[in-house]
Amino acid sequence: MLIRRADEMPGQPVDMDGVKDVSMRLMVGRSDGAPNFALRHFTVAPGGHTPRHAHNYEHEVYVVAGAGRAESDGTLHDIRAGDVLLVEPNSTHQFTAVGDRPLEFLCLVPLEHDCGGGAVAPTPGS
Amino acid sequence: MLIRRADEMPGQPVDMDGVKDVSMRLMVGRSDGAPNFALRHFTVAPGGHTPRHAHNYEHEVYVVAGAGRAESDGTLHDIRAGDVLLVEPNSTHQFTAVGDRPLEFLCLVPLEHDCGGGAVAPTPGS
Repeated sequence: MLIRRADEMPGQPVDMDGVKDVSMRLMVGRSDGAPNFALRHFTVAPGGHTPRHAHNYEHEVYVVAGAGRAESDGTLHDIRAGDVLLVEPNSTHQFTAVGDRPLEFLCLVPLEHDCGGGAVAPTPGS
Repeated sequence: MLIRRADEMPGQPVDMDGVKDVSMRLMVGRSDGAPNFALRHFTVAPGGHTPRHAHNYEHEVYVVAGAGRAESDGTLHDIRAGDVLLVEPNSTHQFTAVGDRPLEFLCLVPLEHDCGGGAVAPTPGS
């Protein structure tokens, strides 16, 4: 059994178009022998946000700390610690930290996704 | 996008051999259209425990609140809020609440698992 804590792992800055002040910790992923899905811990600094984008795999999210705003296909939702979210495949989404505390959340993804045309690819960040 | 909170959903007692005082909330599962994996919230009352068992699919776990003991293939580990665990397929495991607070954790499972011989079945509680 593998046991890890986010605060004992170094965070890696997320370098993607449209990202502001986000770091990621890959808590459980393919390199750990995870068979099906990866568990990542994200920290969004106050005023920061994830990219506004869509992709053909889902997110399952748990908000660990702080508060924020989740956009989904143009609709805004307030989110806070304790919320669980399902972001469906192909929906446009973005997470923004609100207030003076970082927004921390777990975001799980499948290890692989279907690119269409019969191709299957590793999911980024898994 | 689906958003839920564990404290706004009714907990269902877990009725399995070897369980003591555990309830489950299926936060995101197949009935919500989850494509690949399910996110469940478990509450283990003080003195309670999950069954000591093994199965051929993994768990990915996040400890939300409280403290406990995780057994994995005969080795005991102290766990507390903030810990992330990977329970590998076919490893024997059990979670026990320690102290006077409930142990709360998220436990994610794949929607389906391979039963061997080419058969694939829905994962219980997904």
